[in-house]
Amino acid sequence: MSNILVLFDSSTGHTEKMATLVAEGAASVSKTEVRMRHIQEALPQDVIWADGIALGTPTQLGCMSSGMKAWWDEHSRELWSRIDGKIGTAFTSAGSWGGGGELALMNCVSMMMNFGFLVFGTTDYSGPKTSYHYGAVSAGAPQEDAVRDACLQLGQRLSSWVAVYKDGREELHPHHLDRAKRFPHLGTNP
Amino acid sequence: MSNILVLFDSSTGHTEKMATLVAEGAASVSKTEVRMRHIQEALPQDVIWADGIALGTPTQLGCMSSGMKAWWDEHSRELWSRIDGKIGTAFTSAGSWGGGGELALMNCVSMMMNFGFLVFGTTDYSGPKTSYHYGAVSAGAPQEDAVRDACLQLGQRLSSWVAVYKDGREELHPHHLDRAKRFPHLGTNP
Amino acid sequence: MSNILVLFDSSTGHTEKMATLVAEGAASVSKTEVRMRHIQEALPQDVIWADGIALGTPTQLGCMSSGMKAWWDEHSRELWSRIDGKIGTAFTSAGSWGGGGELALMNCVSMMMNFGFLVFGTTDYSGPKTSYHYGAVSAGAPQEDAVRDACLQLGQRLSSWVAVYKDGREELHPHHLDRAKRFPHLGTNP
Amino acid sequence: MSNILVLFDSSTGHTEKMATLVAEGAASVSKTEVRMRHIQEALPQDVIWADGIALGTPTQLGCMSSGMKAWWDEHSRELWSRIDGKIGTAFTSAGSWGGGGELALMNCVSMMMNFGFLVFGTTDYSGPKTSYHYGAVSAGAPQEDAVRDACLQLGQRLSSWVAVYKDGREELHPHHLDRAKRFPHLGTNP
Repeated sequence: MSNILVLFDSSTGHTEKMATLVAEGAASVSKTEVRMRHIQEALPQDVIWADGIALGTPTQLGCMSSGMKAWWDEHSRELWSRIDGKIGTAFTSAGSWGGGGELALMNCVSMMMNFGFLVFGTTDYSGPKTSYHYGAVSAGAPQEDAVRDACLQLGQRLSSWVAVYKDGREELHPHHLDRAKRFPHLGTNP
Repeated sequence: MSNILVLFDSSTGHTEKMATLVAEGAASVSKTEVRMRHIQEALPQDVIWADGIALGTPTQLGCMSSGMKAWWDEHSRELWSRIDGKIGTAFTSAGSWGGGGELALMNCVSMMMNFGFLVFGTTDYSGPKTSYHYGAVSAGAPQEDAVRDACLQLGQRLSSWVAVYKDGREELHPHHLDRAKRFPHLGTNP
Repeated sequence: MSNILVLFDSSTGHTEKMATLVAEGAASVSKTEVRMRHIQEALPQDVIWADGIALGTPTQLGCMSSGMKAWWDEHSRELWSRIDGKIGTAFTSAGSWGGGGELALMNCVSMMMNFGFLVFGTTDYSGPKTSYHYGAVSAGAPQEDAVRDACLQLGQRLSSWVAVYKDGREELHPHHLDRAKRFPHLGTNP
Repeated sequence: MSNILVLFDSSTGHTEKMATLVAEGAASVSKTEVRMRHIQEALPQDVIWADGIALGTPTQLGCMSSGMKAWWDEHSRELWSRIDGKIGTAFTSAGSWGGGGELALMNCVSMMMNFGFLVFGTTDYSGPKTSYHYGAVSAGAPQEDAVRDACLQLGQRLSSWVAVYKDGREELHPHHLDRAKRFPHLGTNP
């Protein structure tokens, strides 16, 4: 079994909706147990338990929320060097396109690298003009299909990497996914 | 007179279209002379001439283009310490939302900081769910009104800062702009 | 008169020591009033009062401290769009070289850009193998001369930009500083 | 067997010296074949061949070198979506501490994320006030023991993650390394 933690903060509810989609995508891979935790209820033990972690935060001032940051600052000493090598990714709800979503994701990425995580984004597009190369971004609530698919795919991808890398289930490698489905908007491009 | 340089690279033509809009916005401020230069024709002297610089690049792999980077690497020794304190901003055309546009902008920002520039983005929204807090981003060609307005406003803002800060034309400070026009989508916020 | 705010968070006291040096450098420019405020005592009015702001934070997990982030999140609505165009810079105390100091600085930079600030670093070196291109970094307490000088120079530079750009005191532009003093370690390099 | 590629650009020779150390560290893990390639001789096939990749670049203007960027731009179409899921890390030689090394590393990190890599840094310290949380940084040539060790350890860590995750050699997980050796400077800290 693979253990996946979706750890999120949310103020308007937008990031929580994304978290639900990421969790659904993660659970779509067999032999995967998913925990979804708001930072107000999450325990350091949840991170230790997990093989893969999706970190979700509102984008506030081009950065993760102070609540998310405070959670990691508070538990940093307890967790540091005990969660080395876990697989991580991030998602965020920003107020707007161009408004800091990517920066908030990279803020999560560099924080996870501090703890020794292996962090990923994706090559994929989830719709026209919508990709999630550094994790999933939504401007406002995740309403558009392309954004919702980005969340679903990100969760699935997280479970897949854990399955491939931790459990040796090579058949779940994204290379085996249907290329035309993965890149429908790319035509004959690579 | 204020001197504004719009220095850009472009492969598909999308960034060049943005550059034209940024230049148009910059020229809308009185007593402003605007030069628009592709990196293939730009000279170090153009940067030295300018009081304010808007740097435009395609987003390629979450980074400025190698052409733009090579231009600055090549002229770095000649320019370094001679262009301290200029006012700068950036714009970029990415393949998609979430696809690295903000990272390419911050890539330009940190490079300009190296040379001692004062760099800015904006608090403004240019349309629903569209802001340009770190400079203007377009996914593909700048077709949507909100994206085109972001380019125009960014150019105007660049000329305004130069007018305010270099020439003491305090009346051009964005604080004097019509608040309802600046933030139409925000209602009574913030 | 120019108004400079040194706004900082500090847990071990290292960042506070840097703040004292930055404030000293800022005060070395004539006609400058300097306020130094820990985030626990700082008020939004302090930011509104200031023409130039130096933001100091411990580097924690490659990011500004959650305390600093929380301060801005809390006052964001009150300050947003009212502090457009102020001049800003940043400094940080990290646990180590390579340990996230630059990332914490850029975290501050992008946050300040959100509010419309004009943000700067520097071209200068403050000692052998020590520069502060994105703001001043110290690994641990600011003990080395090169790190202490970086703090002093950063504060002086902040006051100078405000003097040049807000008050038209062109004679304070860094271009007029003694080049040999600014770049002693560079020999004949630019 | 695990395949490790050390792909680097170098102008002064500093990054090349780091590359040699990273390659030595990588080769210290049994059943590992290491290729070291300057970008002028590297082929896309080298990346496809590799299970793990260490990307080394001079820090130039807070960014990877234009040469490194151009290599990936040029081969992007050929490689994109064919190298998904590889394990990557980065190292860089900067002119100074505080001079952009971390930013150049994150520039490499975000680029590798574009291609779908799982990227890592480390929790470890390699000496007093020296860590490599986002990859290894050297200010100038890698002369200090702490910097040389950071390079060696980064290479070893890359081979270890590939061994653990691709080949199921769980005994090579860093958790099994001697804690006192890994964190000698931390005393009783976590």
